[in-house]
Amino acid sequence: MIGKLNNLIKKTGAPVCVGLDPDLGNIPPVLLKKAFDAGGKTLEAAASAVWSYNKTIIDHIYDLVPAVKPQSAMYEQLGLPGVAVFKKTIDYCHQKGLVVIGDVKRGDIGSTSAAYATAHLGKVELDGVLTSPFGEDFSTVNPYLGSDGIKPFLQVCAKEGKGIFVLVKTSNPSSGEFQDRLVDGRPLYEHVAEKVDEWGSGLMEDGYSEVGAVVGATYPEVGRTLRKLMPRTCLLVPGYGAQGGKAEDLKDYFNEDGLGAIVNSSRGIIAAWKKDAYASYGQEAFGEAARQATVDMIEDLKKAWQR
Amino acid sequence: MIGKLNNLIKKTGAPVCVGLDPDLGNIPPVLLKKAFDAGGKTLEAAASAVWSYNKTIIDHIYDLVPAVKPQSAMYEQLGLPGVAVFKKTIDYCHQKGLVVIGDVKRGDIGSTSAAYATAHLGKVELDGVLTSPFGEDFSTVNPYLGSDGIKPFLQVCAKEGKGIFVLVKTSNPSSGEFQDRLVDGRPLYEHVAEKVDEWGSGLMEDGYSEVGAVVGATYPEVGRTLRKLMPRTCLLVPGYGAQGGKAEDLKDYFNEDGLGAIVNSSRGIIAAWKKDAYASYGQEAFGEAARQATVDMIEDLKKAWQR
Repeated sequence: MIGKLNNLIKKTGAPVCVGLDPDLGNIPPVLLKKAFDAGGKTLEAAASAVWSYNKTIIDHIYDLVPAVKPQSAMYEQLGLPGVAVFKKTIDYCHQKGLVVIGDVKRGDIGSTSAAYATAHLGKVELDGVLTSPFGEDFSTVNPYLGSDGIKPFLQVCAKEGKGIFVLVKTSNPSSGEFQDRLVDGRPLYEHVAEKVDEWGSGLMEDGYSEVGAVVGATYPEVGRTLRKLMPRTCLLVPGYGAQGGKAEDLKDYFNEDGLGAIVNSSRGIIAAWKKDAYASYGQEAFGEAARQATVDMIEDLKKAWQR
Repeated sequence: MIGKLNNLIKKTGAPVCVGLDPDLGNIPPVLLKKAFDAGGKTLEAAASAVWSYNKTIIDHIYDLVPAVKPQSAMYEQLGLPGVAVFKKTIDYCHQKGLVVIGDVKRGDIGSTSAAYATAHLGKVELDGVLTSPFGEDFSTVNPYLGSDGIKPFLQVCAKEGKGIFVLVKTSNPSSGEFQDRLVDGRPLYEHVAEKVDEWGSGLMEDGYSEVGAVVGATYPEVGRTLRKLMPRTCLLVPGYGAQGGKAEDLKDYFNEDGLGAIVNSSRGIIAAWKKDAYASYGQEAFGEAARQATVDMIEDLKKAWQR
């Protein structure tokens, strides 16, 4: 799957992932009102608004970018109807040719981690019949439980030609509380990074590994170090835009071949209609605002990744 | 919620949690066959078998124990029909008076963690109407992202009178890869434990905190240390039975008042019908086998918790 992702990055000229985080506050009120008027103030109605919102965003950005990243939490908070829209969004993105990174941050041990890997990347066996439960292309995975939690994902990745992004250094202010603590004189995230490189060594495609790493845009000096520690790893970079990460800080997240990183933006694109810069579109044209914000982000990132 | 859990532990005389981990391999073949014959080899049919299985187990153990712990992964691997049974199981356990610990091991940052907390413990606001998406009583939470990931859960716990169990030291063999690494001369899990104590200090009920900790049964010496570092914390203890944890090793997981720990068993109870000791029940009487295994576990644990 990393080969497909890299090819799409080259084809679009955009190392960009659009985060589909449909928090209700990001959805234009006119869209929510329409849904509540039609279906009452129910989870079903809210989920139907999320679906219209997602579909419009996807229709406006699918030809510009290689990948999207639906954030599971935003769908789970709408209960079962929300989870149904998570699945519908994955399927629609696939129809549109996008790579889908399920931002689920799962992580458990042994047979439980195997079940998560099956749920999101694999196929469950029902008396000999194989069925795909959610069918993302990549999952984000939490490493706190160690190799026992990661290996079942690696097995599914090998079988299905899929990949994962392991949390190494997240973009949030308190990421340092545990991730930065010194172990043998070096921050814990460096030890995790070494494991990521090791876990990926058996899953290579065109020089890159199916085991990527989440490395926040908000700590550029850390990104530089981690780039070197994981030369064959694709970095999934949250924190650009809304959280303060800037394009010029991201130069060293990329390899010499211009690959090796994909930068995510969620609110900056899907809620562009709320930003002063795109206010002229108005809430009804939130799709056009999202498209323009995507074009602008790709242009901005050229500073970082073109050599 | 920790007050309710402690009261139920005292009432039942059983510091025991039954793990509802319905991996298909744990379900009696006769039950699966019936479901596949009726509904085809589909996710819907498999999920209906999980529901019958869970309901029978719950009907046979609800009066013996204070709590159950459905493991989200096992439901997610059956896609949407599986997630629907996760919700149905939570609701049914509430009808039966059980405390429900959602073993979801979520963890993210800021607004995303808030969405997970809302999904599993809180209520989502739909234009002024509050609705509970999944409605567990406790969630398990991963601490790797630091306080930013935990605080949104604390806010929801404070508002709803609910609780969390933070992963501190898990029961699996490779838990040491990161959790045991020395930071300032002490294992990382001790630093996490100190944070758990701090996070819980504002959420006390009858001497215990709404912020519990997951501490595996497989490392008794660690359990002893962690008990002292988190005196007001309830320990959720996986790894008893199938993973090798023994009752006599668990003495020091409990406080002098006989509270402070709840020991989980999943396969040991729900798949008791597969064990030699309970084989005489046969696969059709898996509910009776589960009940007897629960009675035996409670008896076994008396060595540990009665003083």
